[in-house]
This record gives sequence, C-alpha cells and structure tokens, in this order.
Amino acid sequence: MEGSFQEHPYVPRDLKLPGFVPLSLSQSTIVGVYGISSLLVVSLVWLFSGRSLKNSNIDRWLMCWWAFTGLTHIILEGYFAFSPEFYQDKTANYLAEVWKEYSKGDSRYAARDAGTVVVEGLTAVFEGPASLLAVYAIATRKSYSYILQFAISLGQLYGTAVYFLTAYLEGDNFAASPYYYYAYYIGANASWVVIPTLISIRCWKKICAAIQVQGQKKTKAR
Amino acid sequence: MEGSFQEHPYVPRDLKLPGFVPLSLSQSTIVGVYGISSLLVVSLVWLFSGRSLKNSNIDRWLMCWWAFTGLTHIILEGYFAFSPEFYQDKTANYLAEVWKEYSKGDSRYAARDAGTVVVEGLTAVFEGPASLLAVYAIATRKSYSYILQFAISLGQLYGTAVYFLTAYLEGDNFAASPYYYYAYYIGANASWVVIPTLISIRCWKKICAAIQVQGQKKTKAR
Repeated sequence: MEGSFQEHPYVPRDLKLPGFVPLSLSQSTIVGVYGISSLLVVSLVWLFSGRSLKNSNIDRWLMCWWAFTGLTHIILEGYFAFSPEFYQDKTANYLAEVWKEYSKGDSRYAARDAGTVVVEGLTAVFEGPASLLAVYAIATRKSYSYILQFAISLGQLYGTAVYFLTAYLEGDNFAASPYYYYAYYIGANASWVVIPTLISIRCWKKICAAIQVQGQKKTKAR
Repeated sequence: MEGSFQEHPYVPRDLKLPGFVPLSLSQSTIVGVYGISSLLVVSLVWLFSGRSLKNSNIDRWLMCWWAFTGLTHIILEGYFAFSPEFYQDKTANYLAEVWKEYSKGDSRYAARDAGTVVVEGLTAVFEGPASLLAVYAIATRKSYSYILQFAISLGQLYGTAVYFLTAYLEGDNFAASPYYYYAYYIGANASWVVIPTLISIRCWKKICAAIQVQGQKKTKAR
C-alpha cells in the first residue's frame, strides 16, 4: 500500500481513488437486499391498491412502479448524488456498498464524473419525490396524474440518454469486465428505458384523447 | 507558433486546441446576423399566422417561438453537435464562427466536453424538428399540440439544467471574462429557462383542465 492508496477493482485501471476501502458485503447480499426490499414495496403497494375497486390492474401496476422507482431515486440515487466520498466508507454502510459494487459496471460513479452526478442529482431531487406523488395522484385520480407521469418518464428517458451517450463519447471503457458491463451498466438501466417509454406513450395517448373530447364539446357548444 | 499550435482566446488558458484558427468575423457581425435572421423568421411567422382568424395572439407568439427555437436547435446547435473540429475552420464559415465566438463564454464547446455535446446533440436531433412540428400542431389545432410543447419545453429545461450544473461541478471556470460569462453563458441561455418554464406551466394547466372536463363527462354519463 502506497500512502493512503488502495488498489481498486475498477476500470480504467489508472483511475485515482485515494483512500478507497474495498467492499465488505458480497454481491449476492447487495443485490439480494435491493431485490427483497423492492419486492416488499411492490407487494405492499399491490395489496393496498387492491382495496379500492376503482383501481384497475394497470393503475395498480403503475402505482407499484412509481413507488419502486421513487424510492430507488430518493434513497439509492439520492445517497450517491450527495456522498462524493462513498468509496472511502469503512462502515459497510449498505448504500455506500451499493455504489462500490455498481461502479464495477460504470466507474464514473466512483470517479464522480460531472454528467453522471448531475443526472443522478436531478433524478433524486426532482423525479424521486415526483414519483411518490404519482402514486398518490393515481390513487386519488388527480387531473394532473397523466401529465405528471409523462413529465417524470420523459425526465428519466432524458437522464438515461445523457448517461449512455456521455459514456459513449468518452470511450465507453468504464466497466471492470463484460459481465459487469451487461449486468450492471446495460441490465440495471434497461428498465428505465423500456418502462418510461411505455408510460410516456400511454400518457400521450390519454392526454390527446382528453383534448379531443374537450375540442368536440366546444364545437358542439357553438 | 509551436508546430500546428495557435494561441486561443479561451479559459482555462491551458486548454489544448491544436490547429485553432482565430475568428474572422467580428462579434457584431456574428450577433447581428443571428439577430436579423431571427427577427426575419419571427416576423414572417407572425404575419402568416395572422392570416387565420382562428389563431389567438398567444398562439401566434408561440408559433414564433417554436419556429425561432426550432431553427436555432437544428441549424446552430446541429452544426456544433456534429462538427468536432469547428475551431480549426479556416473558411470563415458563419456557423463555425458562431461557436468560436460563443466558446468565449463557455470553452467547453471548443473543448468538446461530453456533457455539452450530448445535450446539444439531443436538442438538435429531437427538440429541433419537434419544435417545427409544434408550429404546425398549433396552426392546425392538433390534439397533441399541448403535450408536444410540454415535452419539448421539459427537454429544454432538463438540457439547460445539465448544462449549467455540470459546469458548476467542474469549477465554473470556462468564460474568458465576466463580460462573456454574463452575456453569453448566462444571457444567451436565459430565454431557454424562462420561456420553457412558462410554456410548461401553461400546457400543464390546459391538459389538467381537459382531463377534468373528460372526467366530468364520464361521471355525468353514469
């Protein structure tokens, strides 16, 4: 060990992470805790949302998604955005361990790349709370429900686009191995491309239909 | 002159721009051409949109904005996004000169910062054509007019947020002088914060109102 330097598992190998503390938790623990907590959140929302007969199954699935994605944004991404020195954490803090592990798929997290931090910060601060508001908006049938879901989904898509395209322009060499590249960098982010796309399309259609109805009403009233 | 090196006017001073060719056009020519072309576009759209009595003044202003911002996105920002070597241009190409001049307010343009290129690329490729579509959508009263305007405005706001916040995280030291900082970096971008915010709020309200009308209709129908 040279000074406070510690070998790290990330690529590029010449990335300087002074004071790096290796992971304490195993991959299965880290992924397992996230998986089980998410499953718990989704199950609870599914059960509670089923108590009102007004909620269609698609409403219930959407509430599950918004609760899951909102908590992920606020807790996981919020921790990252405001913890520049997570890789020096010695306490086996679960949230620091998550980002030490994920950085194997994208070392820009450990390196504190400005684009990555900004996208995660915007996601945590705006899209996280807005996603929880979407759960409430769907449950209570607010008139802003569709436009809110559309806005968050578009923000998620824009963020993911910036995230992938900056990596591409910077040489796309931030994963420790092809396994981590596909499992973390591609795999873990894929849901935030597919689901926001589907929700945006649905909201766009719902909104256009409502505007059309309003237009017809105005025409009739003449 | 050392090799193909040429002194440049940008900050940070140690920025390497091999083959840099100094500006040929004056600031007043560069700003003047943009100002006059924009005024021409706005005047033409204002005049043509006045030929239909159906267009309210606010519709006409919106069409002017979308035409102006769409052409700016496609022509100016599109040129930048796909011209990595604009600062080496020797032909006094107007578009290269624009970005040589603007880089005095934000040298990340000349330096080809990945976040800046991605934001400009997304703006040029998606928001530019979508803005021109918005002119058509307003003129022809399409049902997707509000949601389209909302989507583009949100994209503009997200892009501007990434643009400003990445500069802040990277030390906010990219302007050649306070004059260029306020005139170009802050001043030239301010419209893309204020106007998209106003349009987003307007579209949000219009959409909520339409959804409410549809909801009341459904309730009556029961």
